[in-house]
Amino acid sequence: MILAVDGMGGDHAPGEIIKGALESLREFQDIHIHLYGDEQKMAPYLQQHDRLTVIHCSEVIEPDDEPVRSIRRKKDASMVKMAQAVKEGKAAAGVSAGNTGALMAAGLFIVGRIDGVERPALAPTLPTVDGQGFVMLDLGANADAKPEHLGQYAVMGSIYAEKVRHIKKPRVGLLNIGTEEGKGNELTKEAYTILSEAPIHFIGNVEARDLLTGVADVVVTDGFTGNMVLKTIEGTASSFFTMLKEVYTSSVKTKLSAALVKNELGELKEKLDYSEYGGAGLFGLKAPLIKAHGSSNARAVYNAIRQARTMVKYEVTETIHDTIGKGLTK
Amino acid sequence: MILAVDGMGGDHAPGEIIKGALESLREFQDIHIHLYGDEQKMAPYLQQHDRLTVIHCSEVIEPDDEPVRSIRRKKDASMVKMAQAVKEGKAAAGVSAGNTGALMAAGLFIVGRIDGVERPALAPTLPTVDGQGFVMLDLGANADAKPEHLGQYAVMGSIYAEKVRHIKKPRVGLLNIGTEEGKGNELTKEAYTILSEAPIHFIGNVEARDLLTGVADVVVTDGFTGNMVLKTIEGTASSFFTMLKEVYTSSVKTKLSAALVKNELGELKEKLDYSEYGGAGLFGLKAPLIKAHGSSNARAVYNAIRQARTMVKYEVTETIHDTIGKGLTK
Repeated sequence: MILAVDGMGGDHAPGEIIKGALESLREFQDIHIHLYGDEQKMAPYLQQHDRLTVIHCSEVIEPDDEPVRSIRRKKDASMVKMAQAVKEGKAAAGVSAGNTGALMAAGLFIVGRIDGVERPALAPTLPTVDGQGFVMLDLGANADAKPEHLGQYAVMGSIYAEKVRHIKKPRVGLLNIGTEEGKGNELTKEAYTILSEAPIHFIGNVEARDLLTGVADVVVTDGFTGNMVLKTIEGTASSFFTMLKEVYTSSVKTKLSAALVKNELGELKEKLDYSEYGGAGLFGLKAPLIKAHGSSNARAVYNAIRQARTMVKYEVTETIHDTIGKGLTK
Repeated sequence: MILAVDGMGGDHAPGEIIKGALESLREFQDIHIHLYGDEQKMAPYLQQHDRLTVIHCSEVIEPDDEPVRSIRRKKDASMVKMAQAVKEGKAAAGVSAGNTGALMAAGLFIVGRIDGVERPALAPTLPTVDGQGFVMLDLGANADAKPEHLGQYAVMGSIYAEKVRHIKKPRVGLLNIGTEEGKGNELTKEAYTILSEAPIHFIGNVEARDLLTGVADVVVTDGFTGNMVLKTIEGTASSFFTMLKEVYTSSVKTKLSAALVKNELGELKEKLDYSEYGGAGLFGLKAPLIKAHGSSNARAVYNAIRQARTMVKYEVTETIHDTIGKGLTK
């Protein structure tokens, strides 16, 4: 299969993108990578490889670019050309660590939605204390959502968890402010009913407090709330590490203590680094697009490409099309 | 001034409630406490005190009671009688560590709203890494909100921060998924405009990621999102401490490390214990009601009573009435 990769998106592009791409070519013999970007800028990092094709692009989508406008105007941008290749079937899936909004716009307007899918959803896999992880969506593709959209998120998330994360009967939870049925705002009250009738293993409402303990395999919410929750987890973890660091550097005694647990704390930090699970999938499109974290290093890029390959191999798009196209969640 | 205290609400009632009440009487010479509850159950903990009056109540609002129904039916419940005393002006403010939903119902239906306030808001003070803390509202009084309600939350929060937390020109932020104006969902986009025109020091959108770093003194959001963010902070912190504990108990080496930083980590945990700032104020009512955390010990109860006293002393209710009554946020 051919996978299209945006070589210019992300903080550490193109170097780390190329490194990650080469790593995935070594690991998987069944993929070809089409790498889109500025040939001159990429040259120092490129290696000759049978299954690596470089397509020169003269433009780049910048981090500050307005999403919709930029993908419309910068027709020769690496992200745009990558998305077009996917749209035209020249590549089975696309991966980018660039401007998230632009990638979502590229997904919506270039690749396009599966028939029957009302809204695509951005779905990262987040960590849990036991290392299993869970998928949460929507994490920002759409700030406002209707109950029916949440129903579709649930189905798409469940299919992904089953086929890509190999979870037999994924537990799908609705993120809410209490576990009892009937709790929440207008959106979640109505969504509860819809999810109860969807072709999924719905376990009811789940609380934000329990997310990291692995209370569900798939967690459904609207884009605003999802983004809010993710940013809160990140900010709390960050403040925590900051405060821990202050504790550890406050005296000779605490510095000694830090030295004793240095490795273990490093492992802890890695456990919380969810780029190990891959990037965030943009679900509901005619072909998979993966948004790798902006700060992705080569390992993270490798994981995102691996994730794209798995989604294609296990026919996630076709399954979503068959399930939602049948109108089971309408 | 007379402060009404619900002696029966909370996990450690009545013992810790009474202890906290007695502590506040020792500290503040200008308060009388009217303690509502079951005299028999409270007897073992009570001490004779000039400024302590006990009012016997034969019923109790249970943690699982349906809020509105229970405060209507259990007319002799300690929480209900406490709220009625506040309503009738027999007490200047009320404090309870009991059923949050019931206390909010008691606030809405017994004490009543200040003229002009559309929705009361539940407003705890949360910790920041520097120990200053910030007020966030609404944290659950109402799951759905209109933009105008957020405008009122902003004004009430700002008044509280100024008068009770003694912050000169409180920075008020709108919790959103990005800092740029124009970001967010329908609610926050409209609320941004309203907050820009309100009589407050509005600093624009603030992100969830930055809350614990003290990016604002007052953070405004709808009840669903606020509750979601608070639970996420609690859950992340809890998972964090769990994972840290696993690290520390994994070997002799790590146990030694833990022993070295035991005190410092204890201080860290205390820093995050926001009951030091008092309870959550229910803003917008004709008189202050404070919701102390369900698990409050005597110290937390003392802090909640202290908070109530400050709100009365600095005329928070009167100021909210004058500001919102003038229609400045309509």
